[in-house]
Amino acid sequence: MPTIEDVAKQAGLSRTTVSRVINDQPYVAEEKRQRVKEAMDLLGYVPNSSARRLRNQKTETIAILLPNITNPFFSHLIEAMEIKASAWGYRVIICQTHEDEKKELDYLELLRTKQVDGVIMTAVRNEWSKIKPYLTYGPIVLCNENVRGANLPVVYVDHEQAAYEATRHLIQQGCRHLAYLSGGNDSIVAQNRQKGFLKALNQSGLSPVLDEKMEGAYTIDHGRDVLHSLVQHHPNVDGVFTGSDEVAAGMIHEAKQLGLRVPDDLAVVGFDNQAISLLMSPSITTVEQPVTEMGEHCVETLVHYIEHPSVLFRQEIVFRHQLLVRDSTQQRVTMIS
Amino acid sequence: MPTIEDVAKQAGLSRTTVSRVINDQPYVAEEKRQRVKEAMDLLGYVPNSSARRLRNQKTETIAILLPNITNPFFSHLIEAMEIKASAWGYRVIICQTHEDEKKELDYLELLRTKQVDGVIMTAVRNEWSKIKPYLTYGPIVLCNENVRGANLPVVYVDHEQAAYEATRHLIQQGCRHLAYLSGGNDSIVAQNRQKGFLKALNQSGLSPVLDEKMEGAYTIDHGRDVLHSLVQHHPNVDGVFTGSDEVAAGMIHEAKQLGLRVPDDLAVVGFDNQAISLLMSPSITTVEQPVTEMGEHCVETLVHYIEHPSVLFRQEIVFRHQLLVRDSTQQRVTMIS
Repeated sequence: MPTIEDVAKQAGLSRTTVSRVINDQPYVAEEKRQRVKEAMDLLGYVPNSSARRLRNQKTETIAILLPNITNPFFSHLIEAMEIKASAWGYRVIICQTHEDEKKELDYLELLRTKQVDGVIMTAVRNEWSKIKPYLTYGPIVLCNENVRGANLPVVYVDHEQAAYEATRHLIQQGCRHLAYLSGGNDSIVAQNRQKGFLKALNQSGLSPVLDEKMEGAYTIDHGRDVLHSLVQHHPNVDGVFTGSDEVAAGMIHEAKQLGLRVPDDLAVVGFDNQAISLLMSPSITTVEQPVTEMGEHCVETLVHYIEHPSVLFRQEIVFRHQLLVRDSTQQRVTMIS
Repeated sequence: MPTIEDVAKQAGLSRTTVSRVINDQPYVAEEKRQRVKEAMDLLGYVPNSSARRLRNQKTETIAILLPNITNPFFSHLIEAMEIKASAWGYRVIICQTHEDEKKELDYLELLRTKQVDGVIMTAVRNEWSKIKPYLTYGPIVLCNENVRGANLPVVYVDHEQAAYEATRHLIQQGCRHLAYLSGGNDSIVAQNRQKGFLKALNQSGLSPVLDEKMEGAYTIDHGRDVLHSLVQHHPNVDGVFTGSDEVAAGMIHEAKQLGLRVPDDLAVVGFDNQAISLLMSPSITTVEQPVTEMGEHCVETLVHYIEHPSVLFRQEIVFRHQLLVRDSTQQRVTMIS
């Protein structure tokens, strides 16, 4: 039975090119595609997906680990990753970790048991020392979280800087009593945002408003709860930097119910430029990450390592974020003029 | 080396119970848990997840096929399914088909290549005859779509009846020029909703408003586009039944921009009771499906078939929906009084 190598030899092309033609993938010139098909006909080569997978020891499947698909940031990231992976002939399977250390390791087992060829992690809960051993079984790329000391490709935006800019904006709009909602956990992303928030406050000689309800806020309902707690315990709060547009939307909706004016009584900043941030009234000031570009870059990097196995090395790719100023913070009377 | 069967024999318990204890799963009495642990100690049995998986020919992984995780209905369905699957010791992997026939079959290959033990399909694009052969390799449960003639468990709500009730409600509120937005495709769900919509119209002697932009509407942006097209080509439209809260939200937001009053000039019904339906102003009248219960039931049915392999037979489980009347349709001046 002729193999893919025989076809490559006959056509005078690389194995990779033949593989791409067989899988109906893009990025192959029509002339080469024709040569491969002629060689296949000549040799009587019949591609068989499963047989090919077994022979290659490849599953042509990659796993993406994420905390929670109900968060639109992650669902849009996956969307971009999947389109790119498909173009390269890879299936994508999505694994929700729910920020659970055991689940995270359990899904990494897919690499060890050869159920997938590579993994993209969009959040990291375990110590790096527990994840590192899995690199023996296949490549891993980190997206969104920057784990220090991890010797692999890391794709992210500078959350500290983003939080700093958002907080400075609130201060420039006249806010003096600011709170930061961490977005649900003590992740590296949340910690970095907090640093940026505190840096902006320090520069203006302000102290943060702290409330016990603030931690673990990452849904619309959490946003509502936090608002009630703030109104009750810290009625002087005039600006909030949240880690998510959903939390911001919940807060704004509840503020309106209670007769508070946004932004006049309370200015609110979200994160991620989700659809809801434009639909709400007032529209929500937010921070946009280049989700599509980040997702695509992660997949291309991972596929490169799957198809050209080699030792992974540390590689940081920082994408640019953007503060989008809208009605939930704007046109506040500044105290400067 | 002792096997799981040896442990079961030693403890005087079933293999399943021992398996549950090893996997830290619920539903095992503390006394039995203790007996299993003692038997394991006595025999020196060390559980090894991968070895166990290989021995059982089980992957302890199930795949859920869905069109698109950016649709909150599906992401909440998955959420419920995953929690239930976890309690039974199964990992869940999520596979986006993007309503593509080829992708759907490609993900079903996971069954044939033994990468998963069973599959839940939440949408079906291929002819039943193309899906049926995969039942040889493992169980499949259908969720949300009712494929006629398919000999497997089917879990769904009655979309025809739901659409009928929503449309009747619009008519009762005084609407006389109604449009139906199909929600993106010619799926069975969309067809059934259309039947219910037309049935309600027929009963009142009304004709549907038809617009070329109406098909394929399943996002916020589509909602905006449809509204523009309606305003331009069918300015007399006074009621719309959409297949999604996102489309409804996009329409309402755009209507407000154009100075149209909702519901006075245009009444809008969504679907799925998504968070956005309560956050919008006006809040959106919508149809709620019991997502959690449906998801849980699907997983329990699938796990049953995985653990007790047998021929699948047709089994229809219809869950109850509910029309939630809110501000986007209410308090319209009726023409009856």
